[in-house]
Amino acid sequence: MQKYGGSSVADAERITSVARRVAASAPGNRLVVVVSAMGKTTDGLVGLAHQVAPSPAPREMDMLLATGEQVTIALLAMALQSLGLRARSFTGPQVGMRTDRAHTKARIRAITAERVRRALDEGEIAVVAGFQGASDEDEITTLGRGGSDLTAVALAAALKADVCEIYTDVDGVYTADPNIVPDARKLGRVAYDEMLEMASLGAKVLQSRSVEFAKKYGVMVHVRSTFKPDPGTLVTKEEQGMEEAVVTGVTHDRSQAKVSILRVPDRPGIAAQVFGAIAARNVVVDMIVQNISRDGYTDMSFTLPRGDHARAVTALEEIAATIGAQGVAHDERVAKVSIVGVGMRSHSGVASRMFATLAGEGINIQMISTSEIAVSCVIEDKYAELAVRALHEAFEVGRGANR
Amino acid sequence: MQKYGGSSVADAERITSVARRVAASAPGNRLVVVVSAMGKTTDGLVGLAHQVAPSPAPREMDMLLATGEQVTIALLAMALQSLGLRARSFTGPQVGMRTDRAHTKARIRAITAERVRRALDEGEIAVVAGFQGASDEDEITTLGRGGSDLTAVALAAALKADVCEIYTDVDGVYTADPNIVPDARKLGRVAYDEMLEMASLGAKVLQSRSVEFAKKYGVMVHVRSTFKPDPGTLVTKEEQGMEEAVVTGVTHDRSQAKVSILRVPDRPGIAAQVFGAIAARNVVVDMIVQNISRDGYTDMSFTLPRGDHARAVTALEEIAATIGAQGVAHDERVAKVSIVGVGMRSHSGVASRMFATLAGEGINIQMISTSEIAVSCVIEDKYAELAVRALHEAFEVGRGANR
Repeated sequence: MQKYGGSSVADAERITSVARRVAASAPGNRLVVVVSAMGKTTDGLVGLAHQVAPSPAPREMDMLLATGEQVTIALLAMALQSLGLRARSFTGPQVGMRTDRAHTKARIRAITAERVRRALDEGEIAVVAGFQGASDEDEITTLGRGGSDLTAVALAAALKADVCEIYTDVDGVYTADPNIVPDARKLGRVAYDEMLEMASLGAKVLQSRSVEFAKKYGVMVHVRSTFKPDPGTLVTKEEQGMEEAVVTGVTHDRSQAKVSILRVPDRPGIAAQVFGAIAARNVVVDMIVQNISRDGYTDMSFTLPRGDHARAVTALEEIAATIGAQGVAHDERVAKVSIVGVGMRSHSGVASRMFATLAGEGINIQMISTSEIAVSCVIEDKYAELAVRALHEAFEVGRGANR
Repeated sequence: MQKYGGSSVADAERITSVARRVAASAPGNRLVVVVSAMGKTTDGLVGLAHQVAPSPAPREMDMLLATGEQVTIALLAMALQSLGLRARSFTGPQVGMRTDRAHTKARIRAITAERVRRALDEGEIAVVAGFQGASDEDEITTLGRGGSDLTAVALAAALKADVCEIYTDVDGVYTADPNIVPDARKLGRVAYDEMLEMASLGAKVLQSRSVEFAKKYGVMVHVRSTFKPDPGTLVTKEEQGMEEAVVTGVTHDRSQAKVSILRVPDRPGIAAQVFGAIAARNVVVDMIVQNISRDGYTDMSFTLPRGDHARAVTALEEIAATIGAQGVAHDERVAKVSIVGVGMRSHSGVASRMFATLAGEGINIQMISTSEIAVSCVIEDKYAELAVRALHEAFEVGRGANR
């Protein structure tokens, strides 16, 4: 199983290169190749849609967007055939990718993969459109962001593939963003849970959804570069030795904003009222902090995607008036820095060492959240790079011994 | 049933105009709208295909090309919805357009139109992708040139639509090309058989295939302009009064070449040998003329599409050597002018009046062919416009009384 993203198949020339790369791994292998739409095709189609309708219906959006991947599969199959290989393209509906009816963000229900198996049995390379499927009513659906990775992982699970190779424009998962930390190191292996935390805490290489699916069905994922031959990073089940490093990676996320509702009367049910108002606007909140109550009042702060911040503030101002809170404050200049590692389970004092490291750089911590294998702090955005470098150094992440 | 061609839906703005036009005819009607790919989309996709493969497999070509119409249906459905109408798009496979497996030139086997009926029953406008279908093996197929018209006519037949309106960039069927004959007149009605002859003799407004289908199932076709509100031309079964005009239209075709094989020994089976050699090169011959035999030798001439002429000459030179013919001559500067009309059945002397008219202008006739309702002459190309004008005048086509 191989998957190539949009930048890997951005034009005819790159499709030809991908065909050569696929051809090189074809001998002796049963090969399925999943592809995304070419380069900026999807953005172009979305633009067209908004030219004809201010808010296009999701059902028609899926009808429109599904064409992007269909173009790529046809072209890649042609390119493979012109290299003398046998290949056959399949749309999502054709491979039996059955989803629910939630257009533009459908969830996979089942995959028959019947036609893919038949093609493989006949010695053909199956070229499959990522991102798309069909509901039981035979409506074309799409899987939303990261959908092509998900197609690849789900097909790999259905076909019991040895490995699901995700070819992308980065060459693996790094201990931190190499643009910020010069001695960031490419990881040879990461555990599913680490990858999940890293994905949700800012690492962009894989979407959490695909990692969750891979974990659930035990699919080994190999994230690697389309443009370089070197091996990348294996995302796999936890293995012996993985816990020796306390911290596997340092991530950061600068796409969030912080919003606070001030002097909220502290009575039962008040949090439900506040967050109900936000949820009603379809805003998904990330971290939540509630201060200790003082004189019967409390402050509540939370982070959310920066794009949703205006809607959240409007919602909160209304609810503040209703419940008698003092008002609403917001800050878009925040960043979340996180340390992630399965080794945290067996090491204590990790969080306090993180706080001490940040304090040592004079960085104030505004909010904290923790999980079993991650600690995150919200800080002022201007300190984000400094914080990532300091944490990478303090936890000796760049020197990791065995992976 | 309405069908809009590629130039009618070339960009977002035109799709919005088409949506308004559809909306205007929506009240009180059960409406199905068939559309082609936007403008030059298909050419662009074909270009991409040739960038990745010198001779792309027809099966993958269909996978690729079918995306063109799918984009248009989604956008038109969105545009209709944003005008407050209920609309739903359907691909060829979704409407149950079942074809044989002849990729890039599939023939329609059956149409269930089940989902279109359901959409109409629910008060929705059905927006259907022209040109495409699916084989029994669930492979995506396309219908070849003029395929979207064919989709519209076939769906109109399946749904027993009152009329199949073909919206195009000309406003109807004319008695002759108005660029050549200033007093050419738009016909109110033409009979299926006339339209068939006119289509195969050079009129470009409809493909013969769609007209044949319309004739077979009695679908009334209305050819009209996307950009003007005036009624166009009804293509319909023969009606009383249609025979009153001797000639309904004068057509011309300048896309052919003439090829001759000279001094062929005149013995049984020789024609089969000659035309067998040409057919083996996939060249479809149009008119054929064999001179009277003289001293046991004869000349054979025929016309064919100009693009096929080099292949035909090569084939003929080989066969000429084999059978002992003198050689091969060819002429690309020929044109075919034709007169068409169901009135010819009941009027005699039509052909001789045509020959006299051409002779009167000093135009030499190189080849002649006739059918029950048409007469065609091959002449030197430079006389084509003169011939059309003279015939239009001689048969008083521009003054046609009743249609």
